[in-house]
Order: sequence, then structure tokens, then C-alpha cells
Amino acid sequence: MKYLDLIQEKKPLIHHLTNWVTIYDCAQVTRSLGALPVMAHAKEEVPEMVMLASALVLNIGTLTKDFVEAQILAGKAANKKGIPVVLDIVGCGATKMRSEASEQILREVKVSLIKGNYGEISVLAGHDAEVRGVESIGGSDKIDEAVMSLAKSHNAIVVATGKVDIIGDSEKVLKCEEGHEMMGKVVGTGCMAASVLGSFLSVCDKNEHLDAAFSAMMYYGKCGERAASKSEGAMEFKMRFLDEIGI
Amino acid sequence: MKYLDLIQEKKPLIHHLTNWVTIYDCAQVTRSLGALPVMAHAKEEVPEMVMLASALVLNIGTLTKDFVEAQILAGKAANKKGIPVVLDIVGCGATKMRSEASEQILREVKVSLIKGNYGEISVLAGHDAEVRGVESIGGSDKIDEAVMSLAKSHNAIVVATGKVDIIGDSEKVLKCEEGHEMMGKVVGTGCMAASVLGSFLSVCDKNEHLDAAFSAMMYYGKCGERAASKSEGAMEFKMRFLDEIGI
Amino acid sequence: MKYLDLIQEKKPLIHHLTNWVTIYDCAQVTRSLGALPVMAHAKEEVPEMVMLASALVLNIGTLTKDFVEAQILAGKAANKKGIPVVLDIVGCGATKMRSEASEQILREVKVSLIKGNYGEISVLAGHDAEVRGVESIGGSDKIDEAVMSLAKSHNAIVVATGKVDIIGDSEKVLKCEEGHEMMGKVVGTGCMAASVLGSFLSVCDKNEHLDAAFSAMMYYGKCGERAASKSEGAMEFKMRFLDEIGI
Repeated sequence: MKYLDLIQEKKPLIHHLTNWVTIYDCAQVTRSLGALPVMAHAKEEVPEMVMLASALVLNIGTLTKDFVEAQILAGKAANKKGIPVVLDIVGCGATKMRSEASEQILREVKVSLIKGNYGEISVLAGHDAEVRGVESIGGSDKIDEAVMSLAKSHNAIVVATGKVDIIGDSEKVLKCEEGHEMMGKVVGTGCMAASVLGSFLSVCDKNEHLDAAFSAMMYYGKCGERAASKSEGAMEFKMRFLDEIGI
Repeated sequence: MKYLDLIQEKKPLIHHLTNWVTIYDCAQVTRSLGALPVMAHAKEEVPEMVMLASALVLNIGTLTKDFVEAQILAGKAANKKGIPVVLDIVGCGATKMRSEASEQILREVKVSLIKGNYGEISVLAGHDAEVRGVESIGGSDKIDEAVMSLAKSHNAIVVATGKVDIIGDSEKVLKCEEGHEMMGKVVGTGCMAASVLGSFLSVCDKNEHLDAAFSAMMYYGKCGERAASKSEGAMEFKMRFLDEIGI
Repeated sequence: MKYLDLIQEKKPLIHHLTNWVTIYDCAQVTRSLGALPVMAHAKEEVPEMVMLASALVLNIGTLTKDFVEAQILAGKAANKKGIPVVLDIVGCGATKMRSEASEQILREVKVSLIKGNYGEISVLAGHDAEVRGVESIGGSDKIDEAVMSLAKSHNAIVVATGKVDIIGDSEKVLKCEEGHEMMGKVVGTGCMAASVLGSFLSVCDKNEHLDAAFSAMMYYGKCGERAASKSEGAMEFKMRFLDEIGI
């Protein structure tokens, strides 16, 4: 596949400022794809590290005030360099701090792709939704509308993950029905998806971002299906899933 | 089993402030049980996140001064909401900071269940014991006595993990002989036990806490036995153990 | 093997101040060898915890200013106690902060063993090399020279990891060709090697450090080969690799 081949060939550095729960998995899924992960978060070095990178992935899963500041610093450096920025709005809507952090980052950084589960994306778009913690629990009737309206207001690709993943820009949404319910039983599959999206976006131009994001989610979902067919439980599935993703 | 069914049904949010080593495993074991983990630790958001939660799990494995303050803040919010608080006193006795943090949390927060290995529980109860780092290395002749005296002074359930797990309140101790030596070769089995205890306690009333804690340890131990019978090494065991726990 | 038997027998405590990405794996590989890991990082407790330890492993993979200060505090305590200190200079050369931290630690702490990949070791020795993030990407014609010159200026063992691992002191280098390319596909194999080196050094005298370091890398590489022969992907490999290392 085009994007996968390009990742193999270019070995892009994907700089993450992510949470402390799934940080290993984000690094590993990036490595498995053939890209190079780096997870530096000190304010003193993030602008310099971003200069070596081909994409930046931000995730607010275990945010603190300081950490959000480092993310904004990294985001501004990424904008200056012109590399894609992926923002995973983990738990947006669960607490005021998370909603505000999501909005602050989006105000100060030009984000290329916003990712969240149905609840998080719905809340950020101003719709009603239940967000209890960070796991996906609810759906939304108007998720397509939420995706397109967010995409429009931020001039970004939006990915809402759920049973069917919705990938959209301001004009249309694409639906990815690949995937397996086992993915919902493994902590980190959402976070890892952001790393995969960042890796795919890192090797193409802005006008290809929608296609790259859709391809990323299709590939991710298909790997999940293949892994599920060989696994008895969630942890065996996780191992085989990463190995299916691996090139 | 009653508690497991209730966890499946209610999908309680289990809020953790835990260490950076086993944070993923604590989240995953919670998810595997059918509950929802969240690992927020910023002082700004913990009181709000606790309000969504059905139990709080505190673990001092990689404590800092700030982190203990966030734990106390979360603990007070949990007390206010009336949800169970589980405290895992990792390394209590190894350094002054850990002993003091354990005592400070217990002074400022009403803890429902105190968990530690034989050495940690013995030290907290004022007995002599060797605590070298955070792994369980020693036994104690008077562990039953330590469990009951701690339970009495803190009006809490106490769980001392070891070859035989001791689960007690101020009046009696129950002994769980389930489990497998392989569990001692995997980093994090102690921490994960606290998540399982928190999940079980989250779905019942205070007068059932002793029974729920005993049931949790029995279930945990039995899953360990089943997993060990199919595994060749510690890491294969860890994968199969989590998959046995998984519903 | 001598060192492995000694680790089993003495169960040395290996104190780590390491990064947040591979912290679990560093702890687990230490446990798998039969040693006891502890990952305390608070300035308030590191000097006390070091007093219980038989080796100290420092890793700058996700450094902050505060964290480097804690590492120096721990390093000075380790020097005072006379236990070996292993320093893994992750990403040295990628940013100014990492290069400066490496040099600062080496200036303030007597380090027994410096470990890095070819690029990192080359940069620290003042040679030209490409360091993009933290993954090993380049070689170096003059790696033997870099190893020996660093070893001389710091009176330390130096280990440069790559397709062939170079283990040297100021006078000679030993080459370890064991290992498998699969090791490069798993995030954390470099960090875990530092834990293995620390465990081996913890059970012998300074005059045996070169031999112990070489034995550690040979053992590590051989376990990698055996695991690779039974694994289909990187994650299955990782599981089997740790289980080969396990005693």
C-alpha cells in the first residue's frame, strides 16, 4: 500500500507527547509500521526534537498543566516546520480541564487531524454526549454532523472512532467498518490509532490527508480482524494485532 | 460469580492514581474485568474525575510529594462521594518517604482497604520486617496479628499478599491459598490485585467488603493457576493470566 | 553461568531512574534475571533507596531538568556506597538537552559503564554521527576508537550497541555478534540491555566489569536468537525474548 511503502522507505520520526498509560504502545505501533518513535516531553527540548520529526502526535490522556504547555510549544514548532499535527482528545468532556485543554491546544496550534471517540468528538463539537472517563461508551445519532462541523471550524480532518469509524473533512465523511470488538477490550487501541494516523500523514501532502487517514483506519481495522481470528483473549489479541500491523 | 456479574452490568469507573511502572497493567486488568479504568492524576481534575467514579485506587509505587498531594485530594473527594478507596502501600518501610506517605494518606483519607505484601503490612502495623525495594521478599510469623491490628486501627479491610494471601478485618482473617509462584515472577501482579480489589469493592456495600475482597483474591489466584498451567515463561504467563481474568 | 548464578543467589536490588516508555520492561527484565527492580525517582527518597541497592541504572530517555537532578543525586549516593552505575545515554546528540545531560551526569557522577547505540556513543566521543530521535539508525567506521577513547576519558566500560555490539575499556574492545535483527523492531531492547548490564555488574568487582559486560551482552544476544527462532512478529518475539532471559 502506498502510504505503508512510503513509511518503510522514509522512516519518518514521529514525535509524541502522549499519556503515561499507553506511551509504550504508541511507540511500539509506530516502530512496527517502520517509522521511528520519539516521546520527548521536556519544554526545553521539544522544539528542537520537533525539528527532526515528520509528524507530531499529541494526546491528553494523563495531562497536567505543564504538559499541555509543552504540547503547545511542540505544536507551534510543528506548525513552523510545516509537519502534520494529530491531536487525540482523550477524555474531552469528562472533566473541565480536558475540555479546556482540547480547546486551548486547538486555539494555539494548527491541528491537521483531531481524533476522539464518538463521545469526545460529539462534546467538542458542542453536542450532548456521555463521557465517563476515557473509554468509549456511547454513540451519537449526529456523529457525521459533529465530524463535519468540527472539520470545518478547525480546517482539519476529524476521526471519530467507534463501532464504525467516521473519517471526515468539512464536506464529506467516509466510513470504515473494518475492525473487531476485541479492539475495545484492549487499553490503548485508541491511542495507537493516533500514532498510526500520524505515521500515515507524515508521508503525504495536505491534500492527501483525508485519503491517508481513511487508509490508516482501514489498515488498522483489517489488522484487528486478522489478529482476532487467531486470538483467545484480549492480551493475546494485542500481541497479534501489533504483529499484524508490523511490516 | 456475583461480583463479576455486577461489574459486567454496572461497568463502574475505577479511578487510579498509581505508579508509572505498572500503570498500563492496572488499567488493562480493570478493563479485562469489564470495568472502566481512568488514570487521571492532575490536582486540577482529580476531584472532578472522582465524582464520575465508583472506586478509587491509590498506589505509592513511584510517589513524589506532588503526587501524594493529588492522591489525598482524590481520596477526600472519594470520601465525600462515599465510594471505596483502596490503598496499595508499595515499598512502605523501604524509605522514610514511603512510610510517611502511607501514614499521611491514612490520616487524611478514610481508606476502605489497605493492601501490601507481608513485609509492607508488617512494617505499617509496627512489626519488624525486611522491605528491600518493592518486591515481596520476606514472610512474617505474626502476619495475622498485623492484619487484624491494622484493620482495627483504620477500620478497614486489610489484604496482605504472599504465598498465602491474608484478608482480614478487625475480628477475623480469611486465607486464600489460590495462586501460583509464577505470579511472583511478573512485575505488577501486586498492583493489578489492587485494581481487582477496587473493582470488586465498587459494586457492593461496606458490609460486604470483606467478602468481596476475599472473592477478588480467590478469583485472581485461580486465574493465575489456570494461566500457569498453559504457560512456559513469565511473560507468556502474564498474557494468559490477563486473558483468564478477562470476561 | 557465573554471573547469572550469582544474581539468583544474591537477588540484588537494581535501582533504576529510567524513562516512562520502557520503565516496565526494564523492571521486568531485571525481575526475570532473578534480581529485584525498584524504580523510585523522587529526590527525597533516591539517596535512601540507593543505600539498599547493589547497582544503579540511569537512562535519559524521557528526561526533564528535575529528573536529571534526581539522577545526579542518586548517582552520588551510589558512588558513596561504592555500587556500579550504568548510564544509558538515550538520544544523546538528538537535542542539546540530551547531550548536556549526558555530559553533566558524567561530570558529577563516577559512572562504571556508559551504554548507547553507535550514533550516541560516537557523538559523545566527539565524532560525527546521525542521531535522529532515540532509535539506532546509523553506523560508524570508527566506533572501536570512539568506545576506547570514551572509556579512557571516563575510566569506564563502554558498550556501543548495534548489529555487532562493541564492549570496551581504554585498552581493548570485545565484539559480540550474538543477537537478531528482530531485537531492533521492539521498542525497549536497548533500555533493557542496560538493566541486564546493571544486574551483571552488581554481583562482581570492578576488575571483572569488562568480562561481566561482555557476558551480559552475549547472554542477551543469545536469548534474542533463541526467541526469534520461535516467533512470528515483534511482539511475540518480545514475550519469548523475556522468557528466554528468565531463569
